[in-house]
Order: sequence, then C-alpha cells, then structure tokens
Amino acid sequence: MPKQCATKQLQGRTYRCFFELALTVMGGKWKPIVLYHLGQAGVQRYSELKRNLPEVTDRMLTRQLRELEADGLIRREVFRQVPPRVEYSLTAQGLGLFPILVTMRDWGAGYEAAMGGAEIITGGVPEPAETEGLHPRYLSESDAAQ
Amino acid sequence: MPKQCATKQLQGRTYRCFFELALTVMGGKWKPIVLYHLGQAGVQRYSELKRNLPEVTDRMLTRQLRELEADGLIRREVFRQVPPRVEYSLTAQGLGLFPILVTMRDWGAGYEAAMGGAEIITGGVPEPAETEGLHPRYLSESDAAQ
Repeated sequence: MPKQCATKQLQGRTYRCFFELALTVMGGKWKPIVLYHLGQAGVQRYSELKRNLPEVTDRMLTRQLRELEADGLIRREVFRQVPPRVEYSLTAQGLGLFPILVTMRDWGAGYEAAMGGAEIITGGVPEPAETEGLHPRYLSESDAAQ
Repeated sequence: MPKQCATKQLQGRTYRCFFELALTVMGGKWKPIVLYHLGQAGVQRYSELKRNLPEVTDRMLTRQLRELEADGLIRREVFRQVPPRVEYSLTAQGLGLFPILVTMRDWGAGYEAAMGGAEIITGGVPEPAETEGLHPRYLSESDAAQ
C-alpha cells in the first residue's frame, strides 16, 4: 500500500512526489526542447537555440533560459569578444534529464506508431525514430556522474 | 545541426518532437501520479487511487481516468458482482511510461538533495529515495515488450 507522502516546497515549487519536482522543473512547452537540443548539440548560441523553436518569441525564450539557468539546469557563458558571444550548455543536473527525454522520445515514437500514425500539419523533416545520442562533450561528464 | 521537425497532430494533440507527445499524454498534475501508483500497486480500485490523491475532486479524478483510458494507457475492468467492482491497471502502453517516471523520481530526489533539501509543508511520510519497483503482475508483460 503506497503511503501518503509529505507536501514539500523547493524554490517556490510545491510537490509531493519526486517526479512531480522533475516534471515542474523540466516541463512546459519549450524547456524540454531546449534541454534536448543542448544535449544533442553540446553547446548552442542563442540564435541556434531559437532555430529549434521557431514559434517562440524572444521574450519567452529568454525567460525560459533564465529559469533553466536559475534552476541550475543550463550554464550560460559569456565570452568577452566583439561582438560578445554567449553560449549555453547543460549542467550536470540538466545532463541528468537528457536520458529521460530520450526515453520519452522513444516512447512517443512507439505510441504514435501504435495509434496508427499522426497527421502532418506543417512541413519539415520527419523526426528520426532512432535515438540520436548525447553530444561527445558530455560523455566524460556523464560517466563521472554514474 | 538538428533539423526542424514537422508539426504533427494525433488525437487532437499538436506536437513536433516525440517527447512532446509523451509529455502531453502523461503530463499534468494528476496523471503521472495515477500511472506511477498503478505501476507499483498492479491493480487499484477507484477508492485506492483516490487515496493517493487526496486533493483531487471526484469529478477531476474521473476525468483523468477517462482520458488515460481513451489514450490507451490504463485499462478499466468492471466485475459484475454486488456491489460492482471496478479495477484499474496499466496497459502495455502505460507500462512503457513507468520506467520514465521512475527515472524522473530518481532525478527529482537527487535534485532536491543538490538544492539543499526541501521545506516540508504538510505532514506525511518522507518519500523513499530508492526505487520501489514495478508490481510483479507486470513483470512478464514487461519482458514480453522488450
């Protein structure tokens, strides 16, 4: 019999189960996409991140990136050059979410197929069903975390 | 360079990446909790499900269960006896989400600890950090799916 867990609060988030915490930190419409592409690409500049999210406004993307940074999931590095270069990458915490996104992607691919396939609404390339992995820059970090 | 994926629609849901599909199907405030407890408990009656979700209204829980059933993630079985018995369990598709929830739980536990721990708001037992696994009734099904 599962027991009732305590209600907890962390950085303004209320949750009971640990996976609720994970869902609130990683969830929403844009954050998982940012995390996923950073995991695959290794490092991305703002303009590269935005290319993955053509529907998002600058205001909204900036807000998502600030929240992800404040929650310790992504790292923002500013290189003082002309013009200044700003790069985003995953922290060790953000890296820990990547395998979850990959498993969700594999599940989603299987689910879509099981439901008889989806209707294409706007153009673009079909998403590859097979797993495209973590960028090599994270591999040693990923090993170290295990 | 990640390519822009097509926008797709499946059963009224719009998404681009497969994990977006997974997030919309499993996501929300109550559904992951229902799926998680069904995975651990094997089979639950309505009253048992409700015990895991004391804040949810009957109207809301019934709606979540209908959606989960319509999406093919849970199975609802009615046993014609007096009084009638209704049991809920995971389908093979729902079962596929359980490892994701477990990984999210483990990540959430690590994240909470890394952030210096959470503040307890209401009473209850501390959630065990170690993985409590899948109910034995699903084990053969899980093997078969691999």
